[in-house]
Amino acid sequence: MKCIDRILLIVCLISPLYGYSCSKVKRDILFQTSTINALLEGIYDGDVTFGELRKYGDFGLGTLNGLDGELVVLDGKFYQVRSDGIVNPVDSSMKTPFAVVTFHEADKTVMANKSLNLEQLEGYLDSILPSQNIFYAIRIDGTFRYIKVRSVPRQERPYPRLVDVVKNQPTFEFYDMKGTIVAFWLPEYINGINIPGYHFHFLTEDKQSGGHILSVITGDIRIQIDYTSEIHMVLPGSKEFSSVDLTKEKQKELESVEK
Amino acid sequence: MKCIDRILLIVCLISPLYGYSCSKVKRDILFQTSTINALLEGIYDGDVTFGELRKYGDFGLGTLNGLDGELVVLDGKFYQVRSDGIVNPVDSSMKTPFAVVTFHEADKTVMANKSLNLEQLEGYLDSILPSQNIFYAIRIDGTFRYIKVRSVPRQERPYPRLVDVVKNQPTFEFYDMKGTIVAFWLPEYINGINIPGYHFHFLTEDKQSGGHILSVITGDIRIQIDYTSEIHMVLPGSKEFSSVDLTKEKQKELESVEK
Repeated sequence: MKCIDRILLIVCLISPLYGYSCSKVKRDILFQTSTINALLEGIYDGDVTFGELRKYGDFGLGTLNGLDGELVVLDGKFYQVRSDGIVNPVDSSMKTPFAVVTFHEADKTVMANKSLNLEQLEGYLDSILPSQNIFYAIRIDGTFRYIKVRSVPRQERPYPRLVDVVKNQPTFEFYDMKGTIVAFWLPEYINGINIPGYHFHFLTEDKQSGGHILSVITGDIRIQIDYTSEIHMVLPGSKEFSSVDLTKEKQKELESVEK
Repeated sequence: MKCIDRILLIVCLISPLYGYSCSKVKRDILFQTSTINALLEGIYDGDVTFGELRKYGDFGLGTLNGLDGELVVLDGKFYQVRSDGIVNPVDSSMKTPFAVVTFHEADKTVMANKSLNLEQLEGYLDSILPSQNIFYAIRIDGTFRYIKVRSVPRQERPYPRLVDVVKNQPTFEFYDMKGTIVAFWLPEYINGINIPGYHFHFLTEDKQSGGHILSVITGDIRIQIDYTSEIHMVLPGSKEFSSVDLTKEKQKELESVEK
């Protein structure tokens, strides 16, 4: 054990006496800001900065304040896929209204070289996930014979609902493109809080393009799945969040927004 | 700033470089083990000890492994209300299949001396909660003109479903009893994970009786509400949890179990 580790361990042991909590960083935990139903209702401004979000994961997806594009988090770097297709690095001071991150550490790795469309890819992943009751962060690297993504345009107040925004979403298509799918699979009971089932974002290998996946045909891919049994959710402190009606059933809206 | 605080602060600042996380203990966060739907399905054994649970709160409710009674956590002490009505302190090495705790710090305090039945008490609380979208830990101290509670008997494997267990639940009635209600109110979107709306447990002032509240008429009471905007949920690692079907709609079962 290195000297610095010993010192940290000793400080960790005494820290609870002084109102501090000190431990090895929890890496097998999903962290999310706000709820998907709040996003569907047009709550597009959150109070969590990307500087803060970075502490909770190096892998994930979401969006940016003002609904200013799709967020892809890969290898600890945060990327904004704007609605004009341009990818920017995300500044630590920027904020997110909805994001999900974790530290990705593969519990299972599978190679595949079949041509799978989105439905077949989901079916294949279904067959290798060990339980329907925990969370999965799924990283898929490789070549994609075809991929269609969308982004969302920055909104101005008063914010429209998400289902109306995506009626005019810009889409982008790529053929034989190398890149990475950043995805989560979440259980049915997460309904209202996040998206049950799969949620796929994409980033090209050159980090120049990406977005929320609408369609895909895979080539040679490597699938790495991180099994996760904890979730930590932080709700926005805004008046808008406090007063929005989150009780409505939104299954159909969610499908039209996601697909 | 005291010397020890300075040292801890400096160590906290450098700790992320070495894979540690160090911060003031988060007190405004709800911590829960497992999901209510898993409990309804008969997943009565969890892997979280009360020694571990204690780190996450001094106030809360739940049950014990084997469904061995109702759990009440008050002022940092853990109480087991057994099905024979006896209250025992909970040993740190014992485990819970389902529990919710937080550090209770009142954001709002209200005195009331009306005679309220359970429905009226819920209506009154509804009128003073500022938002339907965050979590509330509710502590009610005072005199109760009437209170009816239940506990649940320890189960043997193979475990029956919760809805069948409560068909034979022992109940206890008290008149003009001093004590404390330990309760939570959770939003509708928590459905499947925890109980939307109110969930009331009770402990008498002498810590000799208590249970899950079925009926009440309040006397002079002090209501202290803790507003909470974060939740941390840890799922069980057991094979039983992994394989149980959590997708079924359980609203009616939940009502028959709670009321």
